[in-house]
Amino acid sequence: MSQKYEALRQRLSMIHDLNMANAVLSWDMETVMPPGGSAARAQQMSTLSRLSHELFTAAETGELLERAAAEMAGADYDSDEASLIRVVQQDYADATRLPVDFVAEFTKQTALAHPVWAKARAEQDFKQFQPALERLIDMARAAAGYIGYTDHPYDALLGQYERGMTTQQVADIFAAHRPALVELIAAISAAPQVDDRVLYAGYPIDGQRELGKRIVQAFGFDFDRGIQAISVHPFCTHFSINDVRITTRYSEQYVGESLFGFFHEAGHAMYEQGQAQHLEGLPLAGGTSLGVHESQSRLWENIVGRSREFWAWALPLFRAAFPAQTADITAEQMYRAVNKVERSFIRVEADEATYNLHIILRFEIEQAILKGDLRAADLPEAWNTRFQEFFGMTPPNDALGVLQDVHWSAGLMGYFPTYALGNMLSVQYYNAALRADPTIPQAIAAGNFEPLRTWMQTHIHQHGRKFTGAELTQRITGEGIQSRDYIHYLQTKYGDVYRL
Amino acid sequence: MSQKYEALRQRLSMIHDLNMANAVLSWDMETVMPPGGSAARAQQMSTLSRLSHELFTAAETGELLERAAAEMAGADYDSDEASLIRVVQQDYADATRLPVDFVAEFTKQTALAHPVWAKARAEQDFKQFQPALERLIDMARAAAGYIGYTDHPYDALLGQYERGMTTQQVADIFAAHRPALVELIAAISAAPQVDDRVLYAGYPIDGQRELGKRIVQAFGFDFDRGIQAISVHPFCTHFSINDVRITTRYSEQYVGESLFGFFHEAGHAMYEQGQAQHLEGLPLAGGTSLGVHESQSRLWENIVGRSREFWAWALPLFRAAFPAQTADITAEQMYRAVNKVERSFIRVEADEATYNLHIILRFEIEQAILKGDLRAADLPEAWNTRFQEFFGMTPPNDALGVLQDVHWSAGLMGYFPTYALGNMLSVQYYNAALRADPTIPQAIAAGNFEPLRTWMQTHIHQHGRKFTGAELTQRITGEGIQSRDYIHYLQTKYGDVYRL
Repeated sequence: MSQKYEALRQRLSMIHDLNMANAVLSWDMETVMPPGGSAARAQQMSTLSRLSHELFTAAETGELLERAAAEMAGADYDSDEASLIRVVQQDYADATRLPVDFVAEFTKQTALAHPVWAKARAEQDFKQFQPALERLIDMARAAAGYIGYTDHPYDALLGQYERGMTTQQVADIFAAHRPALVELIAAISAAPQVDDRVLYAGYPIDGQRELGKRIVQAFGFDFDRGIQAISVHPFCTHFSINDVRITTRYSEQYVGESLFGFFHEAGHAMYEQGQAQHLEGLPLAGGTSLGVHESQSRLWENIVGRSREFWAWALPLFRAAFPAQTADITAEQMYRAVNKVERSFIRVEADEATYNLHIILRFEIEQAILKGDLRAADLPEAWNTRFQEFFGMTPPNDALGVLQDVHWSAGLMGYFPTYALGNMLSVQYYNAALRADPTIPQAIAAGNFEPLRTWMQTHIHQHGRKFTGAELTQRITGEGIQSRDYIHYLQTKYGDVYRL
Repeated sequence: MSQKYEALRQRLSMIHDLNMANAVLSWDMETVMPPGGSAARAQQMSTLSRLSHELFTAAETGELLERAAAEMAGADYDSDEASLIRVVQQDYADATRLPVDFVAEFTKQTALAHPVWAKARAEQDFKQFQPALERLIDMARAAAGYIGYTDHPYDALLGQYERGMTTQQVADIFAAHRPALVELIAAISAAPQVDDRVLYAGYPIDGQRELGKRIVQAFGFDFDRGIQAISVHPFCTHFSINDVRITTRYSEQYVGESLFGFFHEAGHAMYEQGQAQHLEGLPLAGGTSLGVHESQSRLWENIVGRSREFWAWALPLFRAAFPAQTADITAEQMYRAVNKVERSFIRVEADEATYNLHIILRFEIEQAILKGDLRAADLPEAWNTRFQEFFGMTPPNDALGVLQDVHWSAGLMGYFPTYALGNMLSVQYYNAALRADPTIPQAIAAGNFEPLRTWMQTHIHQHGRKFTGAELTQRITGEGIQSRDYIHYLQTKYGDVYRL
């Protein structure tokens, strides 16, 4: 009956296995591999990538897709079959638009650029990175040309991470968002600062690990289907719906480093663990877009992990783990400490109120680069001018400015907006969950995270990649992505924290 | 100039990368994978195996081999080029002799048999395992037919692990070996037993790990090119000459479990780390045979790790790590404790004096099975009768007898002799090193393991798979493998330990 679909499914499963195997190699590299293993590992990962890409972009895959599509014509839009064909047709179109030689050259140039960027940042010397960046900008523009776009080359790149989203949509959302953000930050800056010294009281790492694991297990991270390890940069990866890994970075001094890292990565991980089991082994398994993925990590990191209700439950655990460091602290003091807002130069250290402003700055700069309005040589000045305009301060050096992010050295342009979209979506989705079940905050205060996680699983996680981010958001909230809810969330919360 | 050779090398490197990637997946599975990951991991490993097998056995590989062989005709026997072609021609012949369907069915039957065997062993009930074992015996006989042999079907299976070695050779060696072993064990059994209570004094695992790592680092295991982790069954694996992993199993009660496990696996690991760097990425990298590999693990575990000289150096480290457990112990007492000989039912717990007798028993039984002289149903009785004859005692149940080893359930027949060959070769190679440098024992007593390791690297490790075990042994010792040196080693050592 479904012989052609089955042939497609088998080929896609084989390719999926290669991709998952490569993810295992990457995980091993980031968590335990000895230094000597680097060269061979790069070679092994390159071989797996190449085989996977060749198998996927082969004409045979296209033919299997066409035949399966004909066989399954009329299948329900939400069915696994129709969804697999629809999503993979788009994947196939995306993958085959970039010439093989271009992909190989791009991979090579990013591999070369990464250490150059790292050295330039360490030495606060943009000039060292400029030639490599110029090449990568040229290649990003070329990639946009290969992928194709109607209005703006940026559309082509953004669409790789947030399928179907346009530059104009993002620009409209950010235009509405930015003035409200700037106003809020100004108001907070004028208010007395909160006291967060408790977070810097010195915390043994064993205790941090036990506490972090205890809390994310309560959130719903399933340790029978996942593990936690240490890495230099925290991340989440998966090799199956039932094998999802998170990593943590510890600071003995600052307990927030590991704790909010745990919550963030567990948010990503529960999205992967929450997929319907019948998607296992198919390219439909996995988060649908970077923005939706980030909505889940930010939900648990910020909306839950920095809420008054959460700390009502968590403080006794925290005090039991670290009695000396937390002797006189109340839940209210913890709540205020973890919600400190401060203008700073570095995006990854930014709090949830200032974070999106860092993103809007990058979005504007990337657009100008891709249009050809801004040259690499002029980037530091453009960055610093805009930073002064947005934040009222100027980075003292390029390591704290234009060189801070790894993304461009990895060839990732059009990626940054998804962080801000994730913040907005986290509140839109949480509000939808609240409308369905207004008792969620009380449940959180009692350490019961099941209602919230189950709602997210039902409405988002289980679907994997079946629906785009835009489709999911429309289904869940009855409207598209917007910044209104997020601004309202920030204004309410920080009006309270800072008594504005 | 060497265009055809280069084309061959590239294809073989790609296949090698797939195999190494699969080894990473296996390592991850054995060391950290959560239970939920099993099903997807089995699928991923099966996909990588199948791709690797298809690419290797394809006609194209055969053609590349032929063309490269013609191009490289006359190259020096020891050169990388001639060696690669020679070794891979044999690999190719071996791999293509087994029909693809047979390999798939064999993989399936062993996957099915493993849990059946585990349950039968746990419940001491051979009958449960008998039907699966009958199928695997039939398949082993079929495999021998596919592979081909002149004298004995056992030749075909043995040759998979010890290329070029014949059943008759092993039988001759064992025939000379067995009476001397039996006589020695009888003499030891009649002598007063040594006191090894110090090894069972209770040892915290953190201290065991630090001590084990300290010692194998002194041996020469390079932690910049390898790591150590925990697993249920200790093993060594590698993904590169510069990424070699070992695992350890700890017992809080018995310190010898981890300590000699460390030495054993480090011996395997130093063989892999010691390969010439220009073999990296080629199928020439890796130990040449199971017997030679085992010679290196047994060298460091037994000849070094259970020597008087080693304990002269190691006792102060041991006492510093565990002062309470080792308060009144002398180096001489430690030396005697770690060399306790005891007849026992279980091969993997056997000491170096009784070990080979366990192997000879299995060798005789496997030959009878493959010839068709012994049926699965009659195995328990045949085992127990022979065990009584060899050891003077009868296993009280089949878990301590015919069901104890995992090998047959994994389809591994013809594998056991390599353990005994490894023991013999360890002494032959050590004696050759001593002839070249008689100061090696004094160096060991001073904690300097460099002369011994360097000799092994120069004469064995660096060559990878270029030479067969037989070729290596001839080059190093001027003769073939023999049991004379091993028996002399045992007689001298245990004559001393047991004051015979």
